Amino acid sequence: MSIFGSDKLKGKRIAIVATDGFEQSELEKPKKALEDAGAETHVISLKSGSIKGWDGNDWGDKVKVDKTIDEVQAGSYDALLLPGGVISPDKLRMEPRVVSFVTEMMRSGKAVGAICHGPWTLIETGLLRGRNVTSWPSLRSDLQNAGAQWTDETVVTDKGLVTSRNPGDIPAFSQKLIEEIAEGQHQPRS
Amino acid sequence: MSIFGSDKLKGKRIAIVATDGFEQSELEKPKKALEDAGAETHVISLKSGSIKGWDGNDWGDKVKVDKTIDEVQAGSYDALLLPGGVISPDKLRMEPRVVSFVTEMMRSGKAVGAICHGPWTLIETGLLRGRNVTSWPSLRSDLQNAGAQWTDETVVTDKGLVTSRNPGDIPAFSQKLIEEIAEGQHQPRS
Repeated sequence: MSIFGSDKLKGKRIAIVATDGFEQSELEKPKKALEDAGAETHVISLKSGSIKGWDGNDWGDKVKVDKTIDEVQAGSYDALLLPGGVISPDKLRMEPRVVSFVTEMMRSGKAVGAICHGPWTLIETGLLRGRNVTSWPSLRSDLQNAGAQWTDETVVTDKGLVTSRNPGDIPAFSQKLIEEIAEGQHQPRS
Repeated sequence: MSIFGSDKLKGKRIAIVATDGFEQSELEKPKKALEDAGAETHVISLKSGSIKGWDGNDWGDKVKVDKTIDEVQAGSYDALLLPGGVISPDKLRMEPRVVSFVTEMMRSGKAVGAICHGPWTLIETGLLRGRNVTSWPSLRSDLQNAGAQWTDETVVTDKGLVTSRNPGDIPAFSQKLIEEIAEGQHQPRS
């Protein structure tokens, strides 16, 4: 037990995949919660340097990029976090290297957390059929058309897949994601 | 024939539906092309006053709102234009009044033009099954999952439905939309 949090996620490495236009709070707050629980987090993006957040109705602060998507392997991480913000997921889902990484994390049975517009990138994996999810309401039709069961709840958990709707859900989202990571890997999916 | 354009669309009224975050050029340039062809255009939004464009990587200029969505009837218009910009369609598709208006325009067989991220709002009508479309590439999976046939072309026309990919396609998009409006209403769809 550290003085700042717990050791619940000690030794766990979490990939946070985002690019310019991520919703500031949806990256920073779950990142802090995961680190307070003992995890090591890496912000992974399309380019090195930093990425620019989106805070409500305008650009926000920069966040340091730890690794580029070209430098990482899904096998090196215990979990994936996809923050929202309408701009970042809209860019990420067009990047084949991001889609490969996210697909591998989804197939592995490791915990995957996606909040707000974050689940758009999950659609590109083709692995949402029959999965229970929630999201920002604009994505509902897209997730349903991808085969998911969508409900309007603070946090929806389905065998390691943790989704939430908006920044107001962050505390519940972070707590559930930490629990799912601590429980360990689910059975891999074909 | 006016000194600035043609009378091809004389007497035609065009609804341009957008909100904050529309891609500046994708509203202003087709609007001008439609007006130069003799049409009357109305910028229709969620609130009166003005809406703020998006220009490349940041907020752009304001555009005057002519009518709110509460004030208009689909029956009063000969065609619909849905500009892109990642933020505006993401908001519009969540508004039941907008979805009703767009659905009625799609059902009527009148010309509907949607560019870039504009087609997201069309997904909410549930009327894309079997239709030929294009869009900004991030929407491809969403449109395909909604039942549309997606191709990567400058402009795709399918019985009055005109779609394009990005600001570079605007000249071809505007020209094709004008042609489709001039041809008159297609058979209504159930």
